[in-house]
Amino acid sequence: MIRVVLASRNAKKIAEVRRILDQAGAPIQLIGLSDLEVEVTDVPETGATFAENALIKAQSVVDQTGLPALADDSGLTVEALNGMPGVLSARWSGAHGDDVANLNLVLNQIADVPDERRGAAFVCAVVLVVPGAEPQAAEGVVTGHLLREPVGENGFGYDPVFVPDGYDITTAQMSADQKDSLSHRGRALRALARAL
Amino acid sequence: MIRVVLASRNAKKIAEVRRILDQAGAPIQLIGLSDLEVEVTDVPETGATFAENALIKAQSVVDQTGLPALADDSGLTVEALNGMPGVLSARWSGAHGDDVANLNLVLNQIADVPDERRGAAFVCAVVLVVPGAEPQAAEGVVTGHLLREPVGENGFGYDPVFVPDGYDITTAQMSADQKDSLSHRGRALRALARAL
Repeated sequence: MIRVVLASRNAKKIAEVRRILDQAGAPIQLIGLSDLEVEVTDVPETGATFAENALIKAQSVVDQTGLPALADDSGLTVEALNGMPGVLSARWSGAHGDDVANLNLVLNQIADVPDERRGAAFVCAVVLVVPGAEPQAAEGVVTGHLLREPVGENGFGYDPVFVPDGYDITTAQMSADQKDSLSHRGRALRALARAL
Repeated sequence: MIRVVLASRNAKKIAEVRRILDQAGAPIQLIGLSDLEVEVTDVPETGATFAENALIKAQSVVDQTGLPALADDSGLTVEALNGMPGVLSARWSGAHGDDVANLNLVLNQIADVPDERRGAAFVCAVVLVVPGAEPQAAEGVVTGHLLREPVGENGFGYDPVFVPDGYDITTAQMSADQKDSLSHRGRALRALARAL
């Protein structure tokens, strides 16, 4: 069992990642940044890709704590926005972490986009950095399309408007187990767990 | 001299287009939508490109008024936003035509983007539709980069943060003549004027 810091203060995300890793049998005891006694400073996520940002975040936690660190970077890529918000998904509206503002901005921006051009995908890159070892990375993708109004109360971020291919409900209408089984973060984390 | 309706209610844009066409010697007497006695209804700009949107707008005015119509569609393409806001430039913040909100949103979205990835371009497509004739189209592009804070009081839209290649001032710091001589809209309109 290895103690790993997840580079996040988002309680929902920490719970989700812990649940997925446990179910995948990963030998990881996960803690969040808020569980540390040392204060970890956030670094700017200046990467042009999800994998670059995940590596930047994990490496920064390792540098500041000396502990193994796991980071993910994920987001929504929208066809009618040329693949954005992408790496800027969590700060699309300018305010970092304001899920409602970010989601409403995307809906407003593509309000006039017809149904056949509302394709989107959730993409997640995860990177595990253990001091003295090569970083391990994995990626997961779920394709789907965007609704015009939010539906569902579960999940977070853009979940209430995203309908995965093959479903007729949003990821915010799914149970945690159902969402994990198909989600971009679940796919990336299970790929990483297999590699460990 | 042909009387042409510009598909716009933006007084600054109408003045700019009129000035450029006059200087190019185009045989066009330009009026705006507000100068018409008939009420023209806006149509959704659902095109995926600037040229598609310009044609949609010009054709709609022709359909509703029977008069020749000129429309432009233009915007800012930002490298770090995969070419967006693009056709959504005027409504990037969700509120159509709120220049300050749109500009601030782009600045916030790319706040962490390093200088070497702040490239951008102003692109403009113009289309003239004369009833009974083939539509005439032209395009103009000006490449440059984006500042981190607005500078300059002239122009409109994203002018206060856009520095064209070969200059060290924004297009909002230029005189109207100087801006016209290099601007994307000027280039597109002069190309159209030559074709007439």
